[in-house]
Amino acid sequence: MATPTDIPSLPTGRMNAKTAMIIFQPSGRRGHVPIGITIVEASRSIGVDIEAPCGGKQVCGKCKIRVEQGQFNKFGIESRHIHAGPWQPGESEYILPEEKEAGYRLGCSATVQGDLLIYVPEAARAGKQVVSKAARPLDISIDPAVKQYEIELEAPTLEDPTGNFERLADALEKQYGLKALHIDLSALRNLQDALGNGGWQVTVTVWMDQEIVRVQPGPASYHFGLAIDIGTTTVAAYLCELASGQVIDTLSMMNPQVKYGEDVVSRISFHMENPDGLQRMSTDLIKGLNELIDQASSKEYIFPPDSAKAIRIRAADIVDVSVAGNTAMHHILLKLDPEPLGVIPFAPTVHHSLNIKARELGLKVNPAAHIFILPNEAGFVGGDNVGVILAEEPHRQDQVHLIIDVGTNGELVLGNKDRLICSSCATGPALEGAQIECGMRAAPGAIERLTIDPKTHEVDYKVIGRDPWLSYSEPQAMNTKGVCGSGILDAVAQLYLAGVVVKSGAFAKHQISSRFRKNPATDIKEFVLAWGPETSIGKDIVITQQDIRQIQLAKASIYTGCKLMMRKMGVAAIDKIIVAGAFGSHIDCTLALVLGMFPDCAVENVVSVGNAAGDGCRAALLNRGKRLEADWISRHTEYVELTLEEDFQRQLMEAIHIPHMTDIFKHLEGIVPQQVPKRPH
Amino acid sequence: MATPTDIPSLPTGRMNAKTAMIIFQPSGRRGHVPIGITIVEASRSIGVDIEAPCGGKQVCGKCKIRVEQGQFNKFGIESRHIHAGPWQPGESEYILPEEKEAGYRLGCSATVQGDLLIYVPEAARAGKQVVSKAARPLDISIDPAVKQYEIELEAPTLEDPTGNFERLADALEKQYGLKALHIDLSALRNLQDALGNGGWQVTVTVWMDQEIVRVQPGPASYHFGLAIDIGTTTVAAYLCELASGQVIDTLSMMNPQVKYGEDVVSRISFHMENPDGLQRMSTDLIKGLNELIDQASSKEYIFPPDSAKAIRIRAADIVDVSVAGNTAMHHILLKLDPEPLGVIPFAPTVHHSLNIKARELGLKVNPAAHIFILPNEAGFVGGDNVGVILAEEPHRQDQVHLIIDVGTNGELVLGNKDRLICSSCATGPALEGAQIECGMRAAPGAIERLTIDPKTHEVDYKVIGRDPWLSYSEPQAMNTKGVCGSGILDAVAQLYLAGVVVKSGAFAKHQISSRFRKNPATDIKEFVLAWGPETSIGKDIVITQQDIRQIQLAKASIYTGCKLMMRKMGVAAIDKIIVAGAFGSHIDCTLALVLGMFPDCAVENVVSVGNAAGDGCRAALLNRGKRLEADWISRHTEYVELTLEEDFQRQLMEAIHIPHMTDIFKHLEGIVPQQVPKRPH
Repeated sequence: MATPTDIPSLPTGRMNAKTAMIIFQPSGRRGHVPIGITIVEASRSIGVDIEAPCGGKQVCGKCKIRVEQGQFNKFGIESRHIHAGPWQPGESEYILPEEKEAGYRLGCSATVQGDLLIYVPEAARAGKQVVSKAARPLDISIDPAVKQYEIELEAPTLEDPTGNFERLADALEKQYGLKALHIDLSALRNLQDALGNGGWQVTVTVWMDQEIVRVQPGPASYHFGLAIDIGTTTVAAYLCELASGQVIDTLSMMNPQVKYGEDVVSRISFHMENPDGLQRMSTDLIKGLNELIDQASSKEYIFPPDSAKAIRIRAADIVDVSVAGNTAMHHILLKLDPEPLGVIPFAPTVHHSLNIKARELGLKVNPAAHIFILPNEAGFVGGDNVGVILAEEPHRQDQVHLIIDVGTNGELVLGNKDRLICSSCATGPALEGAQIECGMRAAPGAIERLTIDPKTHEVDYKVIGRDPWLSYSEPQAMNTKGVCGSGILDAVAQLYLAGVVVKSGAFAKHQISSRFRKNPATDIKEFVLAWGPETSIGKDIVITQQDIRQIQLAKASIYTGCKLMMRKMGVAAIDKIIVAGAFGSHIDCTLALVLGMFPDCAVENVVSVGNAAGDGCRAALLNRGKRLEADWISRHTEYVELTLEEDFQRQLMEAIHIPHMTDIFKHLEGIVPQQVPKRPH
Repeated sequence: MATPTDIPSLPTGRMNAKTAMIIFQPSGRRGHVPIGITIVEASRSIGVDIEAPCGGKQVCGKCKIRVEQGQFNKFGIESRHIHAGPWQPGESEYILPEEKEAGYRLGCSATVQGDLLIYVPEAARAGKQVVSKAARPLDISIDPAVKQYEIELEAPTLEDPTGNFERLADALEKQYGLKALHIDLSALRNLQDALGNGGWQVTVTVWMDQEIVRVQPGPASYHFGLAIDIGTTTVAAYLCELASGQVIDTLSMMNPQVKYGEDVVSRISFHMENPDGLQRMSTDLIKGLNELIDQASSKEYIFPPDSAKAIRIRAADIVDVSVAGNTAMHHILLKLDPEPLGVIPFAPTVHHSLNIKARELGLKVNPAAHIFILPNEAGFVGGDNVGVILAEEPHRQDQVHLIIDVGTNGELVLGNKDRLICSSCATGPALEGAQIECGMRAAPGAIERLTIDPKTHEVDYKVIGRDPWLSYSEPQAMNTKGVCGSGILDAVAQLYLAGVVVKSGAFAKHQISSRFRKNPATDIKEFVLAWGPETSIGKDIVITQQDIRQIQLAKASIYTGCKLMMRKMGVAAIDKIIVAGAFGSHIDCTLALVLGMFPDCAVENVVSVGNAAGDGCRAALLNRGKRLEADWISRHTEYVELTLEEDFQRQLMEAIHIPHMTDIFKHLEGIVPQQVPKRPH
């Protein structure tokens, strides 16, 4: 039986007392870090850059961050402080009492004492931040599914004793052209009181011009919606004022299901092996979402942004919700059996978008609110991908777009306004540093950047958590522990550029380097990236022939996917590559291009767009046309099962080769200086 | 605070240990009867005729009845037997063990030991039974809102991994033309299993060609619906097989709200005086309805009727429900504030029909079923009246119809296919024997029939519970206790025919009768109907000038209502009078016509139709067009507030007069012999 403790390869902070899991929002980056380091240190070790010009001396106040969550359950501010260490006197210089209450800390003063979810406000983000779950401006007209209408009625009289609902419906038709309205039972129950308290002047909240979901006495105030992006690891929610479309707050939390397994497959397994597994995962997720909603309604917001007005949002004021997630998150949320997602032919239970009453789902927003669940494209391509397409709009472009949304599993979208196809590709965990001989997550001590001298084959590198490269350090000071995804990609590229590895990915026959050897125990060829004395693990850190194959397979998988899709569509060249999601934040897009991970494309036409799924979810919240568009996308984006292509295996094998040197230099030209730091001499 | 015990004028069996409330179905007749009498005796005392040719000697078995409910809460068969007395050995001769388990008893052997709800099967009903809550054949085509479709799907493949819902929806569109189907979440959750267990052959239950509410593996079996008529005192439910429209069972129970007050006004008061009053009444009603549903699913039925197949119905097999009730029952069921119904201008919260999910209302049928709530016409004219119109169809007739549905409150409908108006009239409780000097409910000892000799002014009468009239009895044997509604009507008519009372309703100036006197204590004129020695209360039973006024007011109220509606519509004569509901079963329609309670109409064109509200509710269950028609009726039946007519008071005063003698004789011709038994000489 797969319980969380049965997955030794995916430890969390709670399983290892000496480290803790830390997640940074809005980037979504995460990692295990040693207990006791500061949050700024932790951020650096994971590759999140927080502004800290004073170097942690508590004299600039630039590193102000917000502790969102101190543990998986909800204990409020106290637990946030416990997990982020005691309050330092110096912090009060820069953090107001109300900010303190909201969880603000100085990143240089707060320390990691347990699992943490940290929000890095815009002001504290250093320039390098690429992927952002922060809400970026959307190019949509604000036309939400839920709107408010102010209306004044005549009270019924003996001459005209028509009932309240019909008076209201008639007036709404007359004044606003709303026809054949229905009314939710909870709104109907409240109708009489609202009319009485409002002196027959009320504000009516209407869903999709079809159903009255709320009637409030008096003139309109603000009404809110929540766009929720349910990721496998983190959940981000954008609280928006619906009339203006403005984002009031970005809330986030760890997905409470993480305890049942870190990836989608282990969640599905958990369901299959536990009779109440689905129920538990769904309940935990909904409980978590309700905590987010609680969070939103326990804060004060300044709204409108340029006003001095503080508003409080009650849960009942949240009258619309849109939800995007991958198919597994979708099924688990709705308590739909996710088993078929994991079994051939991987069919989801439903593609279409769904509208489900909040009270039926157990979400503690307005009970009459409809939860709009974004549609699924295919068994492995869910509503989050629909969200990406909604946000990036390849189906509205003349130019051919390729969207790559890659994690452990990759989703690919190719096309333009004429046709759109999607597919998924199994990249394996190598790109995240897993199943690699000396691989590790992007955490302190991981080699994240690396060069190999083409002549001497000497290695220079930088580890996470330490600024100076090896060539500027005493070797013993490096405390290297392993190599993370970006380091491995660098290593493969550099080994090839140095001629240690040939086009096929095999080590060259004639090796002059002292770092090359055949492991006597395993008989596998390997190259030493770091010698024992430089490491904190006391042994050489190597990259093996198998590691190189893993990386080649991953990049070949993506490349083959893209290539076969291009062939399927009869497309020779890509006009634009969009890298969505966490992938772009972990790996350098240019390097990926160099290694032949992506099809040929001018570097300037490769962009990383951050949390496009969340953006699309927000678009569906704020523009009802986008909901129709979402369903259109889900049904018109053709799913292509690449493994069914007869030459899939051959293509994959061919793609395993590293591109020809001249092609690589074409890409590197003008870029190398920034991307690959020159070794100082 | 009005609690049940605060309503001394409305005792129930539980408040008075020596009597018990007994209700007979399908007639709906009820009354308090002494503990210990047999059910046949009780039936006679209330005017329900059960066949008992052998006179209660347990030798014919004709009086077989079913004990439906022994008390308000549910204890099953045991409690039924407790309230109906111990099983008599002689009963086993005529009642099979399985019938015994179902609650069957001999009416001559079972006794009243507590509150009882008795169902009189068709076979045991004596000829006089008029009003029937039993299902009469409806002249409608069977086109239910919920239908089943058998379908076989291709399993998804890698080539076509479309999701199950879309496969299903596409197949249903292809094979049955059902477009743009939605699916209920609970049905969606079950979809995968149903397809798996059915080998991709399933039966799909669809509501209104819009929403899939159920998916079952394999070929179709029966599916059922429930038409529920929620009366103020009793609830009747018709369990129907939806494909054939056949009534499988008629279930009934006391409305559990009776304990909060016997009439609509006291229920509304209970709500207004108790913060949780509405909640309690609603919850009790829903609990009661769930007990009815339990009943239906704990029995075995022979279906189809001419087969030898016994079927059991699970609650989940009940996939559609229609509900009709007066506006107060409607509002209380839905937890809508009923207060406005009792306050000027008496506007209901909503007129339109509603569709509410069973799970939302807490009804334990299939959770995805929609409960169709019949629409309201006006504050005093509810979905039960819409049901009456649906069943009687005045809006489809050329002839002008007048429908009178009178209890404590009366509802009137007038018109034909060109126009339909409705109104309500307050008749007061006199017609039920309340607020009358010696009035009582239709119970043993109540004078129910009466003649007055025009010359001698001697009175002959019959009491409930005793067959021989006074003239055939020793006066002491009569044990007269009072006079019930029908007796009072008789008395007024006979006093007028005998010249004791004049056209105005006043006692004639010159009285020769020894029975006429002025009460020395009250100074009110009265006429003795029964002398002390004939009574069991030891004092004279009289009808006072005030009593006559009460009756005159009630009949004037109905008559004025009818008359003003006729004027409103410009109608001089009525083609047909339809008397609906319990009224027709309590009072002789011809006598009512004689007294001027109804407008002029040929006697043969006055019909009593029984539970037309229930019939209409069943029509809505079995024919979806009737649902649209119900909404059409509720919006196109113009409500007329009669009290707003400027000459309302004058008309009412004029109607108080008793019609001219020649008019009366016109009506009595050829009818008197049957209606007024000739005094034997």
